[in-house]
Order: sequence, then structure tokens, then C-alpha cells
Amino acid sequence: MAKRTKKAGSGYPAKARPSAAAADDTTITSLKLLPAPLSPDMAAYFAKCEEKLGFVPNVLKAYAFDMTKLSAFVAMYNDLMLAPSGLSKLEREMIAVAVSAHNRCYYCLVAHGAAVRQLSGDPPLGELMVMNYRAARLSKRERAMLEFAVKLTAEPWLVEEEDRARLRAVGFSDRDTWDIAAVAGFFNMTNRVASATDMRPNRVYHRQGR
Amino acid sequence: MAKRTKKAGSGYPAKARPSAAAADDTTITSLKLLPAPLSPDMAAYFAKCEEKLGFVPNVLKAYAFDMTKLSAFVAMYNDLMLAPSGLSKLEREMIAVAVSAHNRCYYCLVAHGAAVRQLSGDPPLGELMVMNYRAARLSKRERAMLEFAVKLTAEPWLVEEEDRARLRAVGFSDRDTWDIAAVAGFFNMTNRVASATDMRPNRVYHRQGR
Amino acid sequence: MAKRTKKAGSGYPAKARPSAAAADDTTITSLKLLPAPLSPDMAAYFAKCEEKLGFVPNVLKAYAFDMTKLSAFVAMYNDLMLAPSGLSKLEREMIAVAVSAHNRCYYCLVAHGAAVRQLSGDPPLGELMVMNYRAARLSKRERAMLEFAVKLTAEPWLVEEEDRARLRAVGFSDRDTWDIAAVAGFFNMTNRVASATDMRPNRVYHRQGR
Amino acid sequence: MAKRTKKAGSGYPAKARPSAAAADDTTITSLKLLPAPLSPDMAAYFAKCEEKLGFVPNVLKAYAFDMTKLSAFVAMYNDLMLAPSGLSKLEREMIAVAVSAHNRCYYCLVAHGAAVRQLSGDPPLGELMVMNYRAARLSKRERAMLEFAVKLTAEPWLVEEEDRARLRAVGFSDRDTWDIAAVAGFFNMTNRVASATDMRPNRVYHRQGR
Amino acid sequence: MAKRTKKAGSGYPAKARPSAAAADDTTITSLKLLPAPLSPDMAAYFAKCEEKLGFVPNVLKAYAFDMTKLSAFVAMYNDLMLAPSGLSKLEREMIAVAVSAHNRCYYCLVAHGAAVRQLSGDPPLGELMVMNYRAARLSKRERAMLEFAVKLTAEPWLVEEEDRARLRAVGFSDRDTWDIAAVAGFFNMTNRVASATDMRPNRVYHRQGR
Amino acid sequence: MAKRTKKAGSGYPAKARPSAAAADDTTITSLKLLPAPLSPDMAAYFAKCEEKLGFVPNVLKAYAFDMTKLSAFVAMYNDLMLAPSGLSKLEREMIAVAVSAHNRCYYCLVAHGAAVRQLSGDPPLGELMVMNYRAARLSKRERAMLEFAVKLTAEPWLVEEEDRARLRAVGFSDRDTWDIAAVAGFFNMTNRVASATDMRPNRVYHRQGR
Repeated sequence: MAKRTKKAGSGYPAKARPSAAAADDTTITSLKLLPAPLSPDMAAYFAKCEEKLGFVPNVLKAYAFDMTKLSAFVAMYNDLMLAPSGLSKLEREMIAVAVSAHNRCYYCLVAHGAAVRQLSGDPPLGELMVMNYRAARLSKRERAMLEFAVKLTAEPWLVEEEDRARLRAVGFSDRDTWDIAAVAGFFNMTNRVASATDMRPNRVYHRQGR
Repeated sequence: MAKRTKKAGSGYPAKARPSAAAADDTTITSLKLLPAPLSPDMAAYFAKCEEKLGFVPNVLKAYAFDMTKLSAFVAMYNDLMLAPSGLSKLEREMIAVAVSAHNRCYYCLVAHGAAVRQLSGDPPLGELMVMNYRAARLSKRERAMLEFAVKLTAEPWLVEEEDRARLRAVGFSDRDTWDIAAVAGFFNMTNRVASATDMRPNRVYHRQGR
Repeated sequence: MAKRTKKAGSGYPAKARPSAAAADDTTITSLKLLPAPLSPDMAAYFAKCEEKLGFVPNVLKAYAFDMTKLSAFVAMYNDLMLAPSGLSKLEREMIAVAVSAHNRCYYCLVAHGAAVRQLSGDPPLGELMVMNYRAARLSKRERAMLEFAVKLTAEPWLVEEEDRARLRAVGFSDRDTWDIAAVAGFFNMTNRVASATDMRPNRVYHRQGR
Repeated sequence: MAKRTKKAGSGYPAKARPSAAAADDTTITSLKLLPAPLSPDMAAYFAKCEEKLGFVPNVLKAYAFDMTKLSAFVAMYNDLMLAPSGLSKLEREMIAVAVSAHNRCYYCLVAHGAAVRQLSGDPPLGELMVMNYRAARLSKRERAMLEFAVKLTAEPWLVEEEDRARLRAVGFSDRDTWDIAAVAGFFNMTNRVASATDMRPNRVYHRQGR
Repeated sequence: MAKRTKKAGSGYPAKARPSAAAADDTTITSLKLLPAPLSPDMAAYFAKCEEKLGFVPNVLKAYAFDMTKLSAFVAMYNDLMLAPSGLSKLEREMIAVAVSAHNRCYYCLVAHGAAVRQLSGDPPLGELMVMNYRAARLSKRERAMLEFAVKLTAEPWLVEEEDRARLRAVGFSDRDTWDIAAVAGFFNMTNRVASATDMRPNRVYHRQGR
Repeated sequence: MAKRTKKAGSGYPAKARPSAAAADDTTITSLKLLPAPLSPDMAAYFAKCEEKLGFVPNVLKAYAFDMTKLSAFVAMYNDLMLAPSGLSKLEREMIAVAVSAHNRCYYCLVAHGAAVRQLSGDPPLGELMVMNYRAARLSKRERAMLEFAVKLTAEPWLVEEEDRARLRAVGFSDRDTWDIAAVAGFFNMTNRVASATDMRPNRVYHRQGR
């Protein structure tokens, strides 16, 4: 287990290799779509991202070939993830990551894994959501929420009243159930747009919240 | 095969049973969420639905507990399904149904199966999208489009450059690829919101386009 | 959601396309097998089909290259689906469709979906069996019956005494359990014969019971 | 690897245990169904089994609660497995076992595994069909046949023209394709009837062809 | 059902075919790896195998290209399968076969199926472990043990405290749980080494314990 | 996307929560197994770990209830991961993580994800192995290696000569193929031991190589 020494002689000559994320901020998707001029609203929004986050998330740049699509995505995202809800922002991000882990989506796991680390102040919680949420020490509320979201992701046709009843049993309201479903649904959408286009996360996410 | 005679004596006494869809227009979801007052925009949109379709789709009523969510949904839906695109409206509806068939979503199969029947004027095409798109006699373009959409639905983590190349090979542009992914992604979202809430389609859909 | 207008301009020029079912009554399977002369029994049976149903189901024509195979199929089918049983004919057809939905069999879903619509007088019930039986409002008896049939279809190796006990608990006798298993088993056979040969359902089924 | 010594001391005291197959010839299924009087035809058939095989296969006893069902089963079985066909009897039995292996059906694996051992005179061939047909050294014809049968078993909805073409490419006629499909379909039926009823194979099969 | 007669005329001319296991003792894997000189320890161990079993298991010959790998394998194997444990040797072999059945590993099913037959003196028990352990008449202890081992094999990410609690409930200690996990884990390793290299079992196993 | 502000007001009051990894270094597994006295060899090995790594990996502490098991594990691990091989140490760790990602094993993903980050000097490469190796920009050699290892993990029964041929085609020798299989097999074992016992990784891994 002396494996951690960086250059222990191996049978295969190490070559300097570029970072696996080297091009992630320059080739954001594998589709060649020209950016459209930003509408005033979207220009303001991008400026706000730069100011608050220090960068514009690559998903927004990916959608920026069409202002209608970009605006619709931003409106839905901001409502789901940031508007008042019975779910905390951390809970919504935990759903985002657990769903994206089922779908093995590189973009969403990197970006929202960082969000879980930051919102919780607990880096291993972010790792656990990425790796296997079942191994995390969660409250009954969190566990029921993620069970519902992941079953809805994996086998939506099996979700029935008894699944909703399990959410109620740990205190979620019907409105909360909607929000869990809507967030889980949303990431089932974005996971697929990201995978279909080979969308790459901003490199800065990798170091956030460590 | 005299099975089609409606009341052939059987060992089990038939009872009058209510239609399996009896309550579909009155109990739209199993969540108790009070409708919010419609915003002027949404009131106008509902009126337009009544005028053009003769009814307001139940999914809109389901979202109408919150005007922000309703507006965001409508904006995204209308852009994806109705705005100009390299994909015809029928093609977009075919994707909607093939994705919903994988996810076995009652609401979306009923509503969008009707749309395929109507847009194509070919009821069996709607049935085939619901039952197994692989059994339909499709053009290479349609087949490639649905293969991509359904793989993206079933195993998004396996979608790679060679999948995009197959779309290009039958003439889809990168923008078309985005649209296929976005429509497939959107129904992966709505299938889950519908399944999570037991959303019921307007009964009128069942007879449309037959 | 103005999508229901049949010729709303789209970016992709609509072409007149032949019905997806255009050849379903002329090329019944993709195997080239010459029909054998009908035996007297089978000729009489075909005549009876014409008289009672107005047509000969395509599956019978598909088997008609060999009288022994046709007779054996007809004997087993008629016993299972039409003979006295603790299961009503509608219940047997519901099993047929739920099994065929799991196996996504075009022929059986069309033909037996029509049977459910006709026997129940409730078109949405037929749709629900095709789309997702779990979304239907079923009696406990019906639900237990379909759960057993679909589990037996999907993972027969997991069926054990507790599954049989669930049937007993809602009032099924051991003989009824046999019949549920036999009908589910039969459609697991025919689904595969139909899929293997690309068997096409009579076009008339699509409109029956709507 | 001295593990073969039968009573090497272990931490857990060995008890005399009854054979796992002890009751297989007395409690043939877990359903309590009274045998019906054998019809003359079936009585003759049972007598012929006793004469040729030395016993009546348990599956026949299981069906013997109803002469119509028994006769239909026997007619279909004998046609499929014993009538002239482009497939040899061994090939049909290989399909039977490979399908039953996918479905993990105890009855069919025991009974038809014995048939493969006997017809081939090669016990390991029987084991390979039970365990993993892909590990067997098969001819291209046999391999293509089993690939088709097992795909049809596992994912019938994916079987298409290119699968049929693979059979043609190794010399199978369309009639042979029907027979492969019909045998594979038949065991998908019987596997499920056997699993649903916990059907037990005659104990004598275990030693046949070793 | 006269199928058991070895040369009943069939439509396809039987050819003398070599045994499917013909080369199993000469081409042990499909990798060309030269045996290394046996170390004194390993030479002694091979001699002991010859003496006690009458042969050297092929898996040992497969590892014998490298004495370090062979020694490590033997050390782990002998500890797990032969050292004192709360699990009997038969129980450990039952786990070996049930795990290998899930993974459909020819080598391990043949070698350890023989071990179950020999240690139990009950050939059908060996068959049941290979075919479907759920069909065996097992004690609650054995059943719980195999349920744990097979779930751990199929979906290790779902194993949680309630699974361990089920083992405790039938009397297993925490040390026993470790041993069940370790044996199940070990065969998940060897199944994969065997499948990756097409490892072939000694032909003698096929007849052992019949 | 102002989500990154740590305490933005949400509808759900944040509580101070302990780290999800709080107890990972004190309750290493959920089994209560008393540590045995370290043998001299193992004491020396633990001391070497402390010296080289700064800590003893929790997996070793988990095995330390039994010196035979611990020694066998260490011998096999060190040979596989550290001995000379045609595979570089980084390649072996990449296999470890890709396999563990399929099996969603918290312990192995944390410990070996850290190793990939450290050996490569490229943190995103570690993330990609955890999340979805298919999204990484890999050499053909690396890609073929991981495809083989993950197929062997997911569906070992499908691995055949053409899979080995793909390794040869990118330059792997038969000995390399063994090593790929052996490393993939080993982590299929340890993933299961870790999941079965809820093994927790040393907290220090989370920060290594970031």
C-alpha cells in the first residue's frame, strides 16, 4: 500500500498526459452551435453569474445559441432550485446529485456535487451523493426524499401511492412532493441534454468546497 | 376466437364497472394542491387552449397551483414542440411518445399518442409509437432519431460520439441533434412529474385521431 | 399547445406517408412460408371466424403453413381464453395485454387491446393495459392477478409461495392460479413467436371498441 | 483443496438432511388440483411414456387435472419437439435448455438437460447449456440458433430483420426460423407455468445420461 | 415424449461431434501463459492435491504462470473455504455455486457444483444451486445466507443494515456475516477471472458425486 | 445560479449537521469484530503504512480481526496493485475505480479515487473514473482496458474471445489481459466485502490529490 508515491517505478513508462479536463472550458459540447447575441435579460444574467460565482456555468453557454431556449431553461432552473420551497437548497442539490449519479452524468455530478459540498460545508457529503447516497448517514427525511427521487429516476412506472405515502410519513407536504418530483424530473432532463451533447463542466467546480 | 362477443357467459360474473378513466378529468393528480389565480398571461393561454383545442390540457391545470412554475413549463414546452426546428412537429411528437413508452407514462402516452395520430393522420402510427417503435415501418431518418432518443432515455451514460455520428449520417444537423436531445430530455422530465403525481390525461384524448 | 391543428407550418416539409400499417394485412410475417391446404376442421374454424368476427385473425394465417401447428395453437388458445374458468374472459384478456405490454409485442397488444376494449366497453381500460396497468384503477383481485402475471413474465425465477399466497388472499383458488399462470405463459410464447416473425395484426383491430 | 473429504470437521455440525429432491415425485406442484380421469387417448399416451421412458414425466401429471389442457399441451409439445423439422431433436433440446437457463427454471433444466445429455451422448454439453451456452464450443449454426433463441427470450422487443438475417446467413430456412422461434416461445411458456406452480422434475432425470 | 431414444430419426442428420469438454484439460484458458517452475511450497501443494483429489484443479494450473499469484490465491482460497468458520464447508460451497450461478461461470459451477454434490451426498442439491437456489427446500438459515450472498453479487450497492439484520435474525454472528461476504466476494472475483480467460474445469468434475 | 452563497434563506431552516463522514475513522465497519493481536509481519506492515502513507488504510483494520485473512488480503493486494506488470500503477487504479463505480462502492471509490488523482496528478481524471469513465478523454489503450474491465464486472457471462481480441488489438499481451482481469476481479471482491460490512474509508482520502 505504498501506492501513494507518485513515481514508483512501474512496468509501463509514464508519459506526461494532459489533464482529462484540459479542454472542458473551451469545447463545452461536441455540437458546433454558434452563440447567439445575448438578449438584454440574459446579458444581465450572465453578468450576475460572473459577479456572484466568478464565472458563467458552461450549461448556460451551451444553451446560448438560442435566446428562447436559454431563457426558458434559466426560468425553470431558478424557480426549481432557488425559489422558496419546503425543501432547503441543500436538499434540492442532494436530489440533483443523487439523480445524476444514477444517470452517471459528468456535467451535473461535477457542478452539483460542488454545490452540495458548498451548501453543506461537508465535502464527504458531496462525495457520498455522487458515489452511493445509501452509504450516507442521512436523516429519515433526507433518506425518504432521495429514495423517492431515485426510484422515480430508475423506474418511474413503479411509483405509486405508497411511495407518496412514505414522503408524507416523514413530514413532506403534497407541495413538497411536487418539488421533489420536479427537481428529480428536471435533472433527468438536463442529465440527458448533457450526455447527448457531451457537455463539460467548468473546471473551477472541481476545486470548489473541498 | 369468438372472444369478441361482449357478454359470452364466463365463470366469473361480470359486474358493471365504472370506466377506468372515470375520474381522470376531476382528480387530475393525487396531490392536493389548490389552484392559484391565473396570471393574465396564463389566463389568456388557457383561453387560447379552450378555443383551439376545446379544452385545457390537464397538465396545465396540474401546474396551475403556482404561476411561476406554470409559466416556465409552458415557455419550455411551446419552444420545444411548436417553435421552428429542423424536426417536424410530428417527429417531435414521435420522440415524445417513444420516450414515454420506455417510461410507461400514462399521461404522456395518451396525450402525445393522440398528437401522433392527428399530425400523421395515421392512427396505427400512434399505436406503434406507444407499443414498440421498432415494429413501425420508418424512414432511416425517423429510425435513427428514435434510436437516439430511446437510448438517451434508457442509458444516457452510454451515449457517445458514435451515436451523434449516426444522426449526422442520416442528415441531421448539430442543431437537430440538440432538438432531439432536448425533446427526449423534456419528456424524461414530464414523464417523471406525471408518474410521481399520478397525473391523468383529459378523457377526450382517447378518441382523438382515431 | 396549439399542436392539434393538423397542418400547422413546421420547419420540415410534411410528405404524404403511407400508413404505418399499410401492409399489415398483406405481409403478415416477414417469413416466406406457403399456406398449406386447410384441413376440414381448420376450414370450418376459419369460416366461423369470418362469420363471428368478420375476418380471420392474422395469427391463424401465420400458422396456416402447417395444419398440425395451426390445430395445436387453436386448441390451446381456445381452451385458455374461452373455456369455462374462474377467470372472466375480460380478466384473461387483461392478462394477455399486460404480459404483451411487458414484452412490447405489437401484434398481441393490438389484437388483445381491442379485446379488452370490447369486453369491458371501456376503451381507456384497454389503453391502460397497454401503457401501464399500474396506473389503472383496479380491484384488488385484478391488481393481484396482474402483479402475478407480470412478475411471472419479467422474472419467473423469483416467483415463490408468497406470490401464490397473495393470489389466495384475494380469493383466487389453486385452479385460478393455474389459469393465470397458463394465460401469462401462453402470451409469453405468442409474444415471442410474433416478435420473431414480425407478425402484423389485422388492421381492423385498431378501430374496434373505440 | 482437500475440500472433497466428506466429513472434514467444520465449525457447524453437519446434520443428516433429506435430499433436496426428496418430495419431487410426490408433491409435483404446490397447487392442490385433483387429477381427472384420464381420457382414453391420454391413458394410452401415459402408457406409452411408461413403456418408452420408464415413467410419466411430472409435467404431464401436473396437467392431468384437466384433459383438454393436457391434450393441448401434449399435441403442441410433440409437434414441436418430435415432428420432422429442419432442426434436429438435439438442437431443439439445446434451445429448450438455453431458454430455460435464462429463465432459471428448475423443472425444465433438469428434464431437458437430461435430454441434451442423452441425445448428444455428451454430458458436459448438457451442463454447458444449463450454465452458459456461450462457453460451449459450438458450430456457427448452433451458436446463431441459440443467440436468436436467447435474445428472443430476454428481449423479444429487440428482435428484428437483422436477427433473422443472421439465421439465414448460417443456412437456416424461414421454416427453420419459425421452428427456432416456436421452440423458444414454447419454453418461455412452460418455464413460467413451472415456476408459477413450483413444478418438480422426476428424480430419475438427475441420473440420466451421466 | 419418446425423445429419450438416442437415435430417433430427425430431419437433420446427426454427426459424430466431439465432446463439448474435449479440450478442457489440455487448453485450460485461452491465454498463452507459460507455466513457471513450481516453488517448493506450491510443488508440495500440487502433490497434495494429486494425492487427495487425484488431480490438480485447473484453476491452479491457470495461476501457475506466476508463483506469487498462485500462492496468494491458494492462501486466500484455503482460508476461506477450508479454515474453521461458523459456516460449514457445505454452506461455503453452496454460496460459491449460488454466486457463480448468478454470474453464469462455467468453471466455478462445474467445480463447486461437484463439491456441493459430494459434501451433501445429495446430487439434486448441487443441481438446484446451479439452476435456481430459490427452488431448493432450504432451512431458513441457508435461505437467508444465500439471499444475502446473491443480493451482494447482483446489486452490492443495495446491501444495508437491514440485510445484515436478516442474517442475525436466523442466528448468524457478525463473524459469520463476514465469512458469507468474503466467500461471496471471492467467487465474484474468481468468476470474473475464469470468464475473462475462458477457464475450463477438469473433466473429472462432471462425474463427481453423481 | 446564485446557489453558491452558503446561507441564502431557504424555506427549510438549516441545522448544523455533523459531517457525513464524522464516524468513518472510528466505526470502520458495522460488524463488531475484535481486532486480533497483529502478527510480527503485519505489525511491520502497518508500521510501514504509517510511515509511507501517514495512516493505516481502514480496510486493513477491518481485516485485522484475523491474521490469516489479513495476510492473505495484503499478499494478493500488493501483488496485484504494486508488483511489476505490463499495466502501470495508474492503469491498475483506473480499473479499480471504474469497477468500483459500477458497483457504487463508497470505500473503494474514495480510497482509489484518491490514488488516481495522486498517481496522475490530475484530479478531474479521478472524478471521471468515479462518475463515468466513458466521458473521459482516454487513449485507445485505456479505453479498451476499461471497457473490458467494466463489461467483466457488469456481465461476466458475456465476455468472450472477441473481447480479448480487442485488448490484443490495442497492444495488450495475454499476460496484461490476465492482469486486467485479475484487478477487475479483485475489486469485484473487495467492493462486495466493503458493501456487505458498510466499510468506511479513512477521512484523509477525501482531501488527497485535490
